[in-house]
Amino acid sequence: MRDPVRELQAVLSHEIPITEAIGITVARYDGETLTLTAPLRQNRNHKSTAFAGSLNALVTLAGWGLIWLILKERDIAATIVIQESTSRYLSPVRADFTARCRKPPEARLAAFETMLRRRGKARLELHVQIGDGDTLAMDFTGRYVVHVRKQSADLGEEE
Amino acid sequence: MRDPVRELQAVLSHEIPITEAIGITVARYDGETLTLTAPLRQNRNHKSTAFAGSLNALVTLAGWGLIWLILKERDIAATIVIQESTSRYLSPVRADFTARCRKPPEARLAAFETMLRRRGKARLELHVQIGDGDTLAMDFTGRYVVHVRKQSADLGEEE
Repeated sequence: MRDPVRELQAVLSHEIPITEAIGITVARYDGETLTLTAPLRQNRNHKSTAFAGSLNALVTLAGWGLIWLILKERDIAATIVIQESTSRYLSPVRADFTARCRKPPEARLAAFETMLRRRGKARLELHVQIGDGDTLAMDFTGRYVVHVRKQSADLGEEE
Repeated sequence: MRDPVRELQAVLSHEIPITEAIGITVARYDGETLTLTAPLRQNRNHKSTAFAGSLNALVTLAGWGLIWLILKERDIAATIVIQESTSRYLSPVRADFTARCRKPPEARLAAFETMLRRRGKARLELHVQIGDGDTLAMDFTGRYVVHVRKQSADLGEEE
């Protein structure tokens, strides 16, 4: 994976077209934390702060994107879907906004990979935060389900 | 309020511009249940089902819109923000999608109105569901906070 940031950006833009309308940009990935950004302008709400739905889209994709990167690093072809999430909107966002999602500890990731290779399916819970300057503006927890692609494993399961 | 559906549609389109990109339409309001719809086409994800972020935007606005209608009916000028939500994605959505939000029981609404008029601030929890045919595809619970506008009440509070 020569440039995971550009590769993930291309996947999001191509495969989830609404990310273009929201203006989602893959800003950074240092091997531990994935950072996505979006502009306030087209995501403002009736109070000229960021619309909750746009914040939710950004954090949902930050979690999805981090798992996409983890799977790439471990050379696993799989699909990722979100199963459940909780979002707390703590403070209005008055500027362009940034979501950060940090990898779980390596022991957790190793257990996730073992389960995925053994069962063809595994869950991973991730935390994502959006800050506005030094203020925590949004706090998100998402549980994602990952399925190894059928051509790579004999699953006998639903997609 | 001659035509609340058209009025709410105008508010969403004008005040939350990203709803235009998502294609959110206020479909019906019968005085009890608010129904919003969105097309699959521009909201599809990598699996050609609806992107979780678009589903979340629709349900978040269904709750927001129902409170907007409740406030109109009770002649209260107030702002509505979402405080916390939980979303369960139960089944992939493979077609245009519809969110339904039903009013809480009248006793709950009366308590909400009393609190809002007395304190200038009140919370309301709403449930919203998205179905795909007969299948429940998404289940959402959102807690909203409503503040009476400052010109209408002496709050001495934050916005």
